[in-house]
Amino acid sequence: MPASTTAARGLPVAPSRGRLRPLGLDQVSIDGGFWGELQQLNATTMIEHAEGWMERLGWTGNFDAAAEGRLPADRRGREFSDSEIYKLLEAMAWEYGRTRDDAMDARLRRLAARVARAQEPDGYVNTRFGRPGQQPRYSDLQWGHELYCFGHLIQAGVARARTGHDDELVQVAVRAADHVCATFGPDGNPGVCGHPEIEVALVELFRVTGEQRYLDQARLFVERRGHGVLGEIEFGPQYFQDETPVRETPVMVGHAVRALYLAAGAADLAVEDADDELLEAVTAQTLATLARRTYVTGGMGAHHEGESFGQDFELPPDRAYSETCAGIGSIMVNQRLLLATGDVRHADAVERTLYNVLATSPAQDGHGFYYTNTLHQRVPGRVPEPDEVSPRAASSLRAPWFAVSCCPSNVTRTVASLGAYVATTDDDGVQVHQYAPSTIRAQVGGEDVVLDVRTAYPADGHVQVTVLEAPSSAWSLSLRVPSWATGATLSDAQGTREVAPGYATVSGELRRGDVVVLDLPVEARWTWADPRVDAVRGQVAVERGPVVMCLESVDLGADVATVQVATDRAPVERDGQVLVPATVLDLAEPEAWPFGTEPGAGAVAARSEQRLVPLVPYHHWANRGPSTMRVWLPTT
Amino acid sequence: MPASTTAARGLPVAPSRGRLRPLGLDQVSIDGGFWGELQQLNATTMIEHAEGWMERLGWTGNFDAAAEGRLPADRRGREFSDSEIYKLLEAMAWEYGRTRDDAMDARLRRLAARVARAQEPDGYVNTRFGRPGQQPRYSDLQWGHELYCFGHLIQAGVARARTGHDDELVQVAVRAADHVCATFGPDGNPGVCGHPEIEVALVELFRVTGEQRYLDQARLFVERRGHGVLGEIEFGPQYFQDETPVRETPVMVGHAVRALYLAAGAADLAVEDADDELLEAVTAQTLATLARRTYVTGGMGAHHEGESFGQDFELPPDRAYSETCAGIGSIMVNQRLLLATGDVRHADAVERTLYNVLATSPAQDGHGFYYTNTLHQRVPGRVPEPDEVSPRAASSLRAPWFAVSCCPSNVTRTVASLGAYVATTDDDGVQVHQYAPSTIRAQVGGEDVVLDVRTAYPADGHVQVTVLEAPSSAWSLSLRVPSWATGATLSDAQGTREVAPGYATVSGELRRGDVVVLDLPVEARWTWADPRVDAVRGQVAVERGPVVMCLESVDLGADVATVQVATDRAPVERDGQVLVPATVLDLAEPEAWPFGTEPGAGAVAARSEQRLVPLVPYHHWANRGPSTMRVWLPTT
Repeated sequence: MPASTTAARGLPVAPSRGRLRPLGLDQVSIDGGFWGELQQLNATTMIEHAEGWMERLGWTGNFDAAAEGRLPADRRGREFSDSEIYKLLEAMAWEYGRTRDDAMDARLRRLAARVARAQEPDGYVNTRFGRPGQQPRYSDLQWGHELYCFGHLIQAGVARARTGHDDELVQVAVRAADHVCATFGPDGNPGVCGHPEIEVALVELFRVTGEQRYLDQARLFVERRGHGVLGEIEFGPQYFQDETPVRETPVMVGHAVRALYLAAGAADLAVEDADDELLEAVTAQTLATLARRTYVTGGMGAHHEGESFGQDFELPPDRAYSETCAGIGSIMVNQRLLLATGDVRHADAVERTLYNVLATSPAQDGHGFYYTNTLHQRVPGRVPEPDEVSPRAASSLRAPWFAVSCCPSNVTRTVASLGAYVATTDDDGVQVHQYAPSTIRAQVGGEDVVLDVRTAYPADGHVQVTVLEAPSSAWSLSLRVPSWATGATLSDAQGTREVAPGYATVSGELRRGDVVVLDLPVEARWTWADPRVDAVRGQVAVERGPVVMCLESVDLGADVATVQVATDRAPVERDGQVLVPATVLDLAEPEAWPFGTEPGAGAVAARSEQRLVPLVPYHHWANRGPSTMRVWLPTT
Repeated sequence: MPASTTAARGLPVAPSRGRLRPLGLDQVSIDGGFWGELQQLNATTMIEHAEGWMERLGWTGNFDAAAEGRLPADRRGREFSDSEIYKLLEAMAWEYGRTRDDAMDARLRRLAARVARAQEPDGYVNTRFGRPGQQPRYSDLQWGHELYCFGHLIQAGVARARTGHDDELVQVAVRAADHVCATFGPDGNPGVCGHPEIEVALVELFRVTGEQRYLDQARLFVERRGHGVLGEIEFGPQYFQDETPVRETPVMVGHAVRALYLAAGAADLAVEDADDELLEAVTAQTLATLARRTYVTGGMGAHHEGESFGQDFELPPDRAYSETCAGIGSIMVNQRLLLATGDVRHADAVERTLYNVLATSPAQDGHGFYYTNTLHQRVPGRVPEPDEVSPRAASSLRAPWFAVSCCPSNVTRTVASLGAYVATTDDDGVQVHQYAPSTIRAQVGGEDVVLDVRTAYPADGHVQVTVLEAPSSAWSLSLRVPSWATGATLSDAQGTREVAPGYATVSGELRRGDVVVLDLPVEARWTWADPRVDAVRGQVAVERGPVVMCLESVDLGADVATVQVATDRAPVERDGQVLVPATVLDLAEPEAWPFGTEPGAGAVAARSEQRLVPLVPYHHWANRGPSTMRVWLPTT
């Protein structure tokens, strides 16, 4: 089977066309720094944590129960729990691809074998549907998540194939995909899944195998959707993007993860089919969503109700849903559009979301995760018990696990594959999009390029790129200058020059031993919002490089409701800390009607003091016990 | 049966103790003005509208189907649809009590007879549970709403008894209550209902009948709750007030309507049992909720998710759920606490909620209702089809009916019984709390007092009270001065004097023909929020008397996102219109990342103009087709 597994390269996304060509885990290795440490935590702790919980709650055991005829009696977990095992398998596959660790390989094989045993002769596998005493197959396309689960199974199979194996997991995935095509093909069931995901998976399987039917099936799913094919639900058809076709949707609507996964699949499809209209629609929709429906963290999905996008500029910090999976979905979409178009805005969005959503989810010890990512915590949370399964959106502290636990497994697969976001190539050279201590191996014009990147980014803005190997002919090295990095400089043999946001390119004859240095001004800065974001009017945020900062009550010694900051001078950096000049009010307990004829109605400040208050990176918040927190700080 | 129906007096709430004694529909008649016109609309249109929809959707027919053995096959509507028929019956009972219209009486009897036919020999009546093919009785206390339905049936029976009848509806209600006591008594089922309502109903039935067992049963339900008796749900036990007992809950939490109905029942119970601790707890909880979790409209319940209260000061205008039924619940609680304590803050809260939540729900033609009451509409809504059943929270225009249609029937019963909110008595005299053209008949010291109230309030602040009959001995007349009415004056035979917010009292020998005039400064004023209400920071509202104003795009000729108001002078009143000085911006279409290093990031105003823009009462908004709207206006 998959001929192209020989050209595996550890690529999560491998488009056959596009402005930029990706480099996979075989070509980019991160060896330390912010992302390296998170990958290490993933390898040592997070993957095992997820594996242990799925075992303990019986979600993995559902496959054994299926093979042994113990369903539905012994089934555990929600209707989509199979997908968690598949995402974990995908994480293991990337992790093995990254490290070639034999123990990880063996764990993956053991887990895959349990899934394989549950697959039925026609390729169908799902522990929740189809057996006597269960709902029939595909009897609940709105909420059943069967095709969603297949999508994650196929993505796991793709990850396995792309990391150099053609074994049981790949074969299970291919059989599942063949079953899907046979069942939902042009003459089959005309439905789609309530939760997009199968689309992105089928296109990637087409890329792995070269089998056109997978691409055709992905197109059917994308094109069928948006015409009310799923029927009515209380949230309305917008919830699962079934109100308008994706190519007619100007800005993302409904359930954020669903919208983003669909956009990722549609982008892949558009690229493979050279469907420029569809690509332009997805690009426009994504840029509009970034301009009007995205938090300063990169988080998407403002509403708890329906886990959905709000209206334009409706971005309440204190009710930010900003699901971790939606952040990952945004990273998926923007990385695909970066490859397709080369537009730096997508790489900026990937970076913002990596540092402020993806990195925020896991606890520093790797044993807890955020499902939602609020930007304002009004009440100190409760420490969950170590064995507590949390509702998805309830906790203000990271939870060990959730009844709906899509996010932890999504984090593990994304962290394991981070190397694939670092750099790309085109006919002219190499582009570095994300900065981490790493080695980048590429080919330009058929010749090797090897780059060594050293940096303490984002703590420090100094990025040094050393050319270890270079082609014999002219080539170019492009380094991304983030949109906020006004005043950045690039230094090479020709000297130092200021470079504007976008890509700073060194063209010509970079040779082995040459060094290029990018200096990004990461110093803390005030950030204001478009005034249409009513919820943060009269407030300001602080960013440092790509990192959004926040104020936590544990640093203030008081509730964060009591602070007003003065923005007449820049935030202060001192001993590695960011501090902002603030007035800290001692507010009276509120007991009166809080609306009145004077500004400040109801709030009586018994006293106030002026001082510098320290901020911490938002992605590190709530690692020191219960606290209140805010990203957006009222101004004096 | 009910001995005390002889003293019916048309009282929705008839506590046996308390600081103030209520006057019922037999004693207070509203004969025009704002509330009179709404009562007229209710009589001619709204009740019939609700009756027609319930018939058409088969909700009423469920009772026929029950009597004729056609259930569960022929059942229509949600699990709680029986309660809508009961609330409609209650509305009809008050309406008949108000007008003594024989046609209304006949309609009520016909409808009650259909319910009566469905009642089982043991008093149980519910079209959704207990038959072969249905879930067993009380098998789903979390969500089944069986006791909730009984509560509304009993309230309908109470309304019938209190308007002078002891007929079939009263008997059905009493049998139902007896069934509840027999089933859920001290030695019976130890559960409670997921949705409080039975508590308030049982206390009132106790008051009607004098039967102690109803009061005892209400106490059991109140005391059982708050200990996790209902078990786990995804929203958590806080959702249905089962996390902490009501007497230990410092501020309202969870589903707003549930919390408020429970508080109303607990207040009634506390009064009847002289349980001062419980009364103080409910009072403190209500005042804290008013101080920290209530919109400027009086609306309660900030979250769409779970239709629930948010945290303190979490009051986003654009995601205000502010369910109409929660407003009615707040009116119920505050009226009970007013009677119990005489604290003017509760009468202020009743007025605010009457004008800005209750009055906002129905369309001016009586054929549409708001379920939720947002304070900021960002996108013009869609006009629902006349025969369209809306999801409860989806529309930005009033909808003819809802799949969950608790609000329209709740509005009808409340509007029909508005007279009961106008005035009270105590040993010293009469207190007028709400101002409407009306006649008030009371007794003080065993002698008649008759007052004639003439006013165009709230359009005008002039309230003239003429004494038509007076006791022979000294008595006092107290008129409420709302909290916002600084500078109000009271004029009587002694002259004119300024009176402070609270109650302005004329004591002594008011005689037949004497006239007392209260002048309230209703002119439009700016209203600011406590700065802890982050969502309206840098914004201001306008109130005129008790009426919250709003800006609608149909008056602006542009989206309301484009306005900033100048508050350096007061709002202008001209030709009956309220106008505010504003800058109207012509904002560029947003296409860039909306966060940046300068205030105003992302928003480019191509041009701007200064002008006076007109506001309308919030309760009238969206009566002129789709529009955008905001209550809170950004300041320049």
